[in-house]
Amino acid sequence: MISRYEPVAKKIVHYSANACLIPICSLHGSAVITVEGIGNTETRIHPVQERIAKSHGSQCGFCTPGMVMSIYSLLRNQMEPTSDEMMEALAGNLCRCTGYRPIIDGCKTFCKESSCCQNKVYGDCCLNQKDLPSPANKKKICTALFSAEEFQPLDPTQELIFPPELIKMAESQTPQTLVYHGERTAWISPVNLNELLELKARHPQAPLVVGNTAVGPDMKFKGVFHPVIISPTRILDLYVVECTEDGLILGAACSLTTVKNILTDVVSKLSAEKTKIFSALLQQLKTLGGQQIRNVASFGGNIISRSSTSDINPILAVSNCILNVASQGRLRQIPFSDLFADGLGNNTLEPEEILVSVKIPHSKKGEFVAAFRQAQRRENALPIVTAGMRVIFEEGCNTIRDFCICYGGVGFTTVAAKQTCQALIGRPWDGQMLDEACRTVLKEIILPSSAPGGKVEYRRTLIVSFIFKFYLEVLQSLKIMYPMQYPDIPDNYASAIENFHTKMPQSMQKYQDVEPGQLPQDPVGRPIMHQAGTKHATGEAIYCDDIRAVDEELFLALVTSSKPHAKIVSIDPSEALKVPGVVDIVSVQDVPGTNEFYNYDVPDIVFAREKVTCVGQIICAVVADSEVHAKQAAAKVKIQYEPQEPVILTIEEAIEHKSFFEPQRKLERGNVDEAFKVVDHILEGEIHVGGQEHFYMETQSILAVPTGEDKEMNLFVSTQHPAFVQDMVASCLGIPGNRIMCHVKRIGGAFGGKLLKTSILACVAAVAAKKTGHAVRCVLDRSTDMLITGGRHPTIGKYKVGFMSDGRIMALDINLYMNGGCTTDDSVLVSEVMLLKLNNCYKIPNIRAYAHACKTNMPANTAFRGFGFPQGPE
Amino acid sequence: MISRYEPVAKKIVHYSANACLIPICSLHGSAVITVEGIGNTETRIHPVQERIAKSHGSQCGFCTPGMVMSIYSLLRNQMEPTSDEMMEALAGNLCRCTGYRPIIDGCKTFCKESSCCQNKVYGDCCLNQKDLPSPANKKKICTALFSAEEFQPLDPTQELIFPPELIKMAESQTPQTLVYHGERTAWISPVNLNELLELKARHPQAPLVVGNTAVGPDMKFKGVFHPVIISPTRILDLYVVECTEDGLILGAACSLTTVKNILTDVVSKLSAEKTKIFSALLQQLKTLGGQQIRNVASFGGNIISRSSTSDINPILAVSNCILNVASQGRLRQIPFSDLFADGLGNNTLEPEEILVSVKIPHSKKGEFVAAFRQAQRRENALPIVTAGMRVIFEEGCNTIRDFCICYGGVGFTTVAAKQTCQALIGRPWDGQMLDEACRTVLKEIILPSSAPGGKVEYRRTLIVSFIFKFYLEVLQSLKIMYPMQYPDIPDNYASAIENFHTKMPQSMQKYQDVEPGQLPQDPVGRPIMHQAGTKHATGEAIYCDDIRAVDEELFLALVTSSKPHAKIVSIDPSEALKVPGVVDIVSVQDVPGTNEFYNYDVPDIVFAREKVTCVGQIICAVVADSEVHAKQAAAKVKIQYEPQEPVILTIEEAIEHKSFFEPQRKLERGNVDEAFKVVDHILEGEIHVGGQEHFYMETQSILAVPTGEDKEMNLFVSTQHPAFVQDMVASCLGIPGNRIMCHVKRIGGAFGGKLLKTSILACVAAVAAKKTGHAVRCVLDRSTDMLITGGRHPTIGKYKVGFMSDGRIMALDINLYMNGGCTTDDSVLVSEVMLLKLNNCYKIPNIRAYAHACKTNMPANTAFRGFGFPQGPE
Repeated sequence: MISRYEPVAKKIVHYSANACLIPICSLHGSAVITVEGIGNTETRIHPVQERIAKSHGSQCGFCTPGMVMSIYSLLRNQMEPTSDEMMEALAGNLCRCTGYRPIIDGCKTFCKESSCCQNKVYGDCCLNQKDLPSPANKKKICTALFSAEEFQPLDPTQELIFPPELIKMAESQTPQTLVYHGERTAWISPVNLNELLELKARHPQAPLVVGNTAVGPDMKFKGVFHPVIISPTRILDLYVVECTEDGLILGAACSLTTVKNILTDVVSKLSAEKTKIFSALLQQLKTLGGQQIRNVASFGGNIISRSSTSDINPILAVSNCILNVASQGRLRQIPFSDLFADGLGNNTLEPEEILVSVKIPHSKKGEFVAAFRQAQRRENALPIVTAGMRVIFEEGCNTIRDFCICYGGVGFTTVAAKQTCQALIGRPWDGQMLDEACRTVLKEIILPSSAPGGKVEYRRTLIVSFIFKFYLEVLQSLKIMYPMQYPDIPDNYASAIENFHTKMPQSMQKYQDVEPGQLPQDPVGRPIMHQAGTKHATGEAIYCDDIRAVDEELFLALVTSSKPHAKIVSIDPSEALKVPGVVDIVSVQDVPGTNEFYNYDVPDIVFAREKVTCVGQIICAVVADSEVHAKQAAAKVKIQYEPQEPVILTIEEAIEHKSFFEPQRKLERGNVDEAFKVVDHILEGEIHVGGQEHFYMETQSILAVPTGEDKEMNLFVSTQHPAFVQDMVASCLGIPGNRIMCHVKRIGGAFGGKLLKTSILACVAAVAAKKTGHAVRCVLDRSTDMLITGGRHPTIGKYKVGFMSDGRIMALDINLYMNGGCTTDDSVLVSEVMLLKLNNCYKIPNIRAYAHACKTNMPANTAFRGFGFPQGPE
Repeated sequence: MISRYEPVAKKIVHYSANACLIPICSLHGSAVITVEGIGNTETRIHPVQERIAKSHGSQCGFCTPGMVMSIYSLLRNQMEPTSDEMMEALAGNLCRCTGYRPIIDGCKTFCKESSCCQNKVYGDCCLNQKDLPSPANKKKICTALFSAEEFQPLDPTQELIFPPELIKMAESQTPQTLVYHGERTAWISPVNLNELLELKARHPQAPLVVGNTAVGPDMKFKGVFHPVIISPTRILDLYVVECTEDGLILGAACSLTTVKNILTDVVSKLSAEKTKIFSALLQQLKTLGGQQIRNVASFGGNIISRSSTSDINPILAVSNCILNVASQGRLRQIPFSDLFADGLGNNTLEPEEILVSVKIPHSKKGEFVAAFRQAQRRENALPIVTAGMRVIFEEGCNTIRDFCICYGGVGFTTVAAKQTCQALIGRPWDGQMLDEACRTVLKEIILPSSAPGGKVEYRRTLIVSFIFKFYLEVLQSLKIMYPMQYPDIPDNYASAIENFHTKMPQSMQKYQDVEPGQLPQDPVGRPIMHQAGTKHATGEAIYCDDIRAVDEELFLALVTSSKPHAKIVSIDPSEALKVPGVVDIVSVQDVPGTNEFYNYDVPDIVFAREKVTCVGQIICAVVADSEVHAKQAAAKVKIQYEPQEPVILTIEEAIEHKSFFEPQRKLERGNVDEAFKVVDHILEGEIHVGGQEHFYMETQSILAVPTGEDKEMNLFVSTQHPAFVQDMVASCLGIPGNRIMCHVKRIGGAFGGKLLKTSILACVAAVAAKKTGHAVRCVLDRSTDMLITGGRHPTIGKYKVGFMSDGRIMALDINLYMNGGCTTDDSVLVSEVMLLKLNNCYKIPNIRAYAHACKTNMPANTAFRGFGFPQGPE
């Protein structure tokens, strides 16, 4: 939680933020409270910590401090929040273990509404009747998992105060330009608009950073480098909020949360007719990122980054908004849509120009505005396609006077469907118009099958679907306004108009109560808080990367293959070795023992030797004095490849090339061929089951600490299987297993993903530690983790089933193909499990089943909770 | 080993040195090789390492790297040393486990002489006949502990070369003044004499440091602070060596080793008559420090520091040496003895003057010169008393023409017995003269009983004994020159003339060979190298303080009582807290659990609470970011005491005050009183047995690392009893024992001294780690360790024994008193052991024995190998 004192308003604001995005320089004058600050097991735990812990809101515990701080920040602003506010506060936090229900259960106890389970099945809610009735002779059924009576009350007088010295500083100081110099970057915070414009003229390429939600990820993940960064957060002009007669002017540096609050306020005060644009914008803002993002990301930054999948630009673009831009000695206004006039979003603003504010007009009578978005997840996910649409009718009828559609996610930036709209002017709002619109828009907005981002068919569907939704929405409005003139919307279309609404989870947990005679000290069958629950909630729980650094510890960054199948022609580390702080580069030559671990016919590999067989395969690793240096250097290792054929990525391609791991598993019983001759019916088909990413909250983490003698090494690893890590590392280093001590205190989620790949990463770290004699830490960033560690096996089942008219299955001929990736890992085992399940769960008299683990040029897939079951032929 | 290139002589010199004394700034241009540089278990171990390890030359292993480097340095200068050279090379290294024999056995294999055991008992030496004959039916007796055949040969071509870039640097560079700035001190190395004199004029208080053997220890142990240090090692004038007609001029910066080599050379070339002063000086140099000290300590530094116990000043003072001193614009010569003319050694040289060189004259016909020293140990120990004596006779007779005696160790500086000598001029060299000399010298050289350094009676004896030795030596020489004129020296005096000579140890180890049928893999009864022997010898063995620092680790320095018995009035940490890097101060208030551990009636204490009961009791401790800062700050904690009575230090005082620990142990059998009535003889007396310092090579060492959760702590401790440390620390922190993990990899000697005191120190470190949340390291320096940790109990036995004329003991009435110190520790247990021994080993019909553990104001004495046996009434 960040707290700032606003000297003009003379108030303190508190807001949650993501630590990984906040530049330290931006915190000048702020107070930062982390989970450690609000309570601990030593002195007193905070009620938020207590309630999340006691309501079983932590399992692995890795996400818990974030949950705690989101709710804490909410409660600092709102002592008794609504459950909607609570859900919104938590929307930016991911949990991968609990399913959220127990977290919400704990947090709900702070809400002013009843924190009732709303379970009416048994006639009364959980609060009134904790123990559900149960038939005689059966154990009592309970739903109470914690006892809310024992919770400490929330007491605002116990909270940390905002440091008075910061208030004093904010009020007294004459503002001075702040400049911070890093190793490569200077951070400059000017004090007024003139200075800002002067700076921008001097450094036209320097980005303006407010929330760092656009510039930060580019720097962190895409290697974008800015020698100068300008922070405009002290320029009051950029925070203007002005209600004019015909609209609203919003400063570019206003946070999205501020914009959202202002719009909510204005919408509640003005007539609905005037606020259709505001409402559409509000709808988009509610799902833009999570609250932590919206609290820091600036309105102007979101606009000016002109992201292809912008949530707000399409709606602003169709709404005739105006941009106020400034440069030294020049102020000008440009129509919002000019930003994208070239289709790239590059040439409207001069590099030295900055966006000062945006004017959003009131909507007019006869004007309908809507915004759409489709994402993989409602909150905290980038959209796939967004859209803004606006139509104005001739007064009193449904003849289109003006029509405007803009899309996000279908081109480099926001794209307008100008021709489509132009062609529809003068047409009535009817089914023919809709048909015409859908047909022409797909001709105008062309998404070639190779368009970046993939999912082309889906996106094309969305382009049309959004128009359909808009058509229905407008139709409904027209119908309300002029009930007699328009037909009812068909029932089967009605669901298309409903806005998806995130509901408070209504589930509850039931369990049999223990026998009355069970001793109090016997915990079996009773709900017991996680042994480390409180420590999860206070942040005291130590995960692998929390272990304090050892003197002269090094950080390891991986260099992985960018080719799916290629010979390695050369590895040139010269540029990487020049990066300051780089100590060494390790590769297959440095492995003292085993590099290829044979399980079946294709080995799992520590470092690529001469060739690579998938993108993300580990080729070498850089060790340096810091994570930043290691990653900078890793990006500078130059690898020359000689691409090889074939490149097999999909199951289909593997089948085509007959690329399977041996041995392939077979199950046969009865006489399938004969049986097919006598069955009444035969059905043939295919079933596709997609893969899955483990997405453990804590990425792969290893700390290898050589003791300095006898080649002994202490490994601190986030793994599910320390003995396996010990064995593999010992083999890799060519030493007896008793020289390796593998420590696991706890792990931040695993789900099967912290077995073999973790062991390979531990080998990499151990080889580096062995070579350098230093402790080596390797903590993957999320993108590298997802790139290289594999997941659940995608599977295709091709079946032919013969059955009698009464439904009995008499014969099954099935081939299961799963994408194993480039090494066996658990693929053969998973194929065995699939057949076992088929054999054990179904009694089919005649069966012939093959399970094939496809060898492809993908990272090896691996164990995953369920292990072959989800893909099994259920 | 330090290697330097001497550009004038164009040669590289190699010499051993003590790392703890060498200022890092003095190493500019040098190459330093440590034990890690010469070999390791990973690539190749060096023959020196191999032979010391395989000859069982390591036990705890802490001293082994030093032994290795001493021999390595020797071998770099001398491929096939003599055994004398080998013994000299090792003289500066202490070992506390092996008894040296096995170390020497291994090193002897490099000597050119036979490395024979010289055991002639069985008619042949060990080399020719490894297995000694043994009576039939008995197992064969073996002496071979290792097989020299398997040793690698010493191959000089395999040694590390001197870095050519340093030769280039030394030859090419125009010398420039070097200045290094530390946190508080500047180190200046001028390039020529003028610059040196100018510097000295500017900084008259700045010491000149060559070997740092005088200034270094004062800075390290006595808190002496020098803002400027001048290093004159590049001033060639200070390295002059000139043989003149009547003597030898030696530069003040010449190392003692250089002086020793020059004198050896000159003595071998000139007639004995001329070199009597040189020979006497040589004799002193051989035992001055160890070789590591002599290699770096300067001749001039040793003179000018005017140490009370100087080995060389008395002999130089009696020899009419001349000092050449210089200051800006002035050169002058002063008689050597003027240095001490004031009895304090303060006012002869001006602060801005420096000693350039010393002229030592040839001795003359009729001149006899001798030097004496008595120390607790021959090598590597400061002398108690030293002396230089010179007499000149009238030609052809024994009439004293001139006589000169100077002593060290009997005053603040070197002291001349002027009156005594003056009075004897003209007297013949006979017994009467001797009596007169002895009588008057004790009147002239007055040592009050409170003289600093103690041992007053012993020193008074030495003052006279040295005169007696000189008398005999001169008498013997006169007798050789004029055989007829002088009587023979009485036989019973002869031993007084012999110079003590360190002999090569002649001992050998014998063991029964195993049965011929014993399986080769069965190690029992066979000599087996220490499991970690090679790692000891390569320096790879990790001791507590070798463990790499943890991030933000702190160092702990103790603040101990300077009073034997006092109330603590106040503790003022304000000045200490101002020292840079200081983090906190911990004392009894910070102990969360037990501070007083009761064993019998008086508790062992972690931190003093309100009062102190011995000098060295721990009052509080300072934690800081470095050892230097912690110790600087510890010295600044101001403690006000209110002295208490009584102060009981000795056993006698304890008896007087009846100050004993309860329970006192008693053993009674028969009727002692009746028995005394019938015995033939009664003998009464007292026996005093002194205490003993453990002197483990590795001082007490603890590293406490909080894991960060659940108050868990990892302790890395040099202790004999990790479980005891675990228990005490857990009690002290008030947490369950399972939260404390106590790790002991190995210890560098203990001998009983790493039990209770170690646990108390571990508690101190753990309390500091708990309070600060940081890892805390505590490694005592030798003086603190010896001050606070106690040792073997000094004991007095008062006995009355009754026995018959045939020798049978019929009655024993004995009281054993041991000095337990201020807390019980093991004192009561030790007193039990003493009585048990008396009971179990002797069959005395009538016995009454009491064992009293005296409670005194001394640090508690503790367990020590043997545990009560050495003090037992044997």
